[in-house]
Amino acid sequence: MRLGRIGYINCYPVYGAIDGGAVTAPAELVTGTPAELNDLLIAGELDVSVISAIEYARHARDLVLLPDLAISCDGPVQSVALFSKLPVARLDQATVLLTASSRTSVALLELLCREVWHVRPRFAQARAEASDLDALAGLPHDGVLVIGDPALLLAARGTATYPHRVDLGDAWKRWTGLPFVFAVWAARRTADPAAVRAIHEALLAARAWGLAHLDVLAERATRATGVPSDECRAYFAGLDYALSYKHLAGLTDFFRRLAAQGIVPDGSLQFLQVA
Amino acid sequence: MRLGRIGYINCYPVYGAIDGGAVTAPAELVTGTPAELNDLLIAGELDVSVISAIEYARHARDLVLLPDLAISCDGPVQSVALFSKLPVARLDQATVLLTASSRTSVALLELLCREVWHVRPRFAQARAEASDLDALAGLPHDGVLVIGDPALLLAARGTATYPHRVDLGDAWKRWTGLPFVFAVWAARRTADPAAVRAIHEALLAARAWGLAHLDVLAERATRATGVPSDECRAYFAGLDYALSYKHLAGLTDFFRRLAAQGIVPDGSLQFLQVA
Repeated sequence: MRLGRIGYINCYPVYGAIDGGAVTAPAELVTGTPAELNDLLIAGELDVSVISAIEYARHARDLVLLPDLAISCDGPVQSVALFSKLPVARLDQATVLLTASSRTSVALLELLCREVWHVRPRFAQARAEASDLDALAGLPHDGVLVIGDPALLLAARGTATYPHRVDLGDAWKRWTGLPFVFAVWAARRTADPAAVRAIHEALLAARAWGLAHLDVLAERATRATGVPSDECRAYFAGLDYALSYKHLAGLTDFFRRLAAQGIVPDGSLQFLQVA
Repeated sequence: MRLGRIGYINCYPVYGAIDGGAVTAPAELVTGTPAELNDLLIAGELDVSVISAIEYARHARDLVLLPDLAISCDGPVQSVALFSKLPVARLDQATVLLTASSRTSVALLELLCREVWHVRPRFAQARAEASDLDALAGLPHDGVLVIGDPALLLAARGTATYPHRVDLGDAWKRWTGLPFVFAVWAARRTADPAAVRAIHEALLAARAWGLAHLDVLAERATRATGVPSDECRAYFAGLDYALSYKHLAGLTDFFRRLAAQGIVPDGSLQFLQVA
């Protein structure tokens, strides 16, 4: 079995125990950006992976969700943000670059522009990983959507280039009152259910270890990113890794809005059967 | 296998084909009020049944949901209403009778009172089936929550006794912007999955027949209730029997509000696995 793993520190609370050997996952780990893992899972190159919420909705017929596991926030998320030279209300016809590494937050930004801010920027895709940030500055643009560790790094650089920083978790919460689910874990429907259940159990055990060792993980996150450890610790505190009713309410509210626009097929949620 | 069936006309679009012989369900049918069926399913006396949404949340560990099947509205529902002698804003400390036949709409009314109208009525349970409506008039009260056919009958009597009629589907929609899911279909987790899947397929086939024959069903509903057939037809038009993202958004939003109040355990949705 091949299990997808995002390298961003937001996944440390779930994968940290596996990386450090505290929990053994019965699978070979494959690391990538969210967008890379999405495509590999859909292509059948992975059996189980963390994937963008929207990609579950796009491919729900081929996938089953892993119960009680997701990456969400209930307010500011820190690591998914629009960095803008203009206030959002002035982004009509402005150029906004979109990280190529994300799908869900791109769809969320487009919803916010259309339905909340009532602006129609011109969107263009761009690379926006940590090593791309300097090159990004050389591209003509009014705003840029950045996710993950590079978003934390860019925020740490201060407000000179982008005086307007909109946290997309916060914007969603203000709009809907709900948590926002960025990523879920899914398995291919054709994967062996017993093997998927074993991976699911390992992931839940790893999450339990991770949530009990956030200080250790914050230190590791600092070594990986250079972001101070108290900021990493505060970042973890704003994330949530469960998938209960309030998260499902946020997830399905996002999906119904996307389905209403024809962006994803209308559908339902199918979970892996567990005892 | 024993399959629960609500006698109200709101279930005709699903059960009408089975009642009339157009579709055969591989089960013995048991007819009751929603509250009766809830208790029979939880007690293990039924294998599959339509049940109150809230009862699924209360007993989620013992049940699996049947995919793509529910009773919901996306705005006024007609048949779930608070009939009141006073405007809702004046119901603080007033006496409101609650039909003993419902669980979900009772919880919805309590949420609306607390979180939207900011009143705390004194609630008391009462029988409110069609044959109880005259006796109900003799009980001292300021308002009464009635569901199903008796709600349609009481509305048809006009506004003399209750000048204020609040449609709970409409009130929910105004509050949240979402559909409200009153009932879902669930099976006991221990029931044979193949037999449950066969019943599920029969129910979906029956729904397809029902939605294609709403005029026939409206005539039957008139014979059963005395409500004019164009009103029955309009009533059916306001109901929805699917369970896709927008319905799931309404359902989980209701559940998260109940869980936040401690009224139901926090949890997730578990569906029967189908191909």
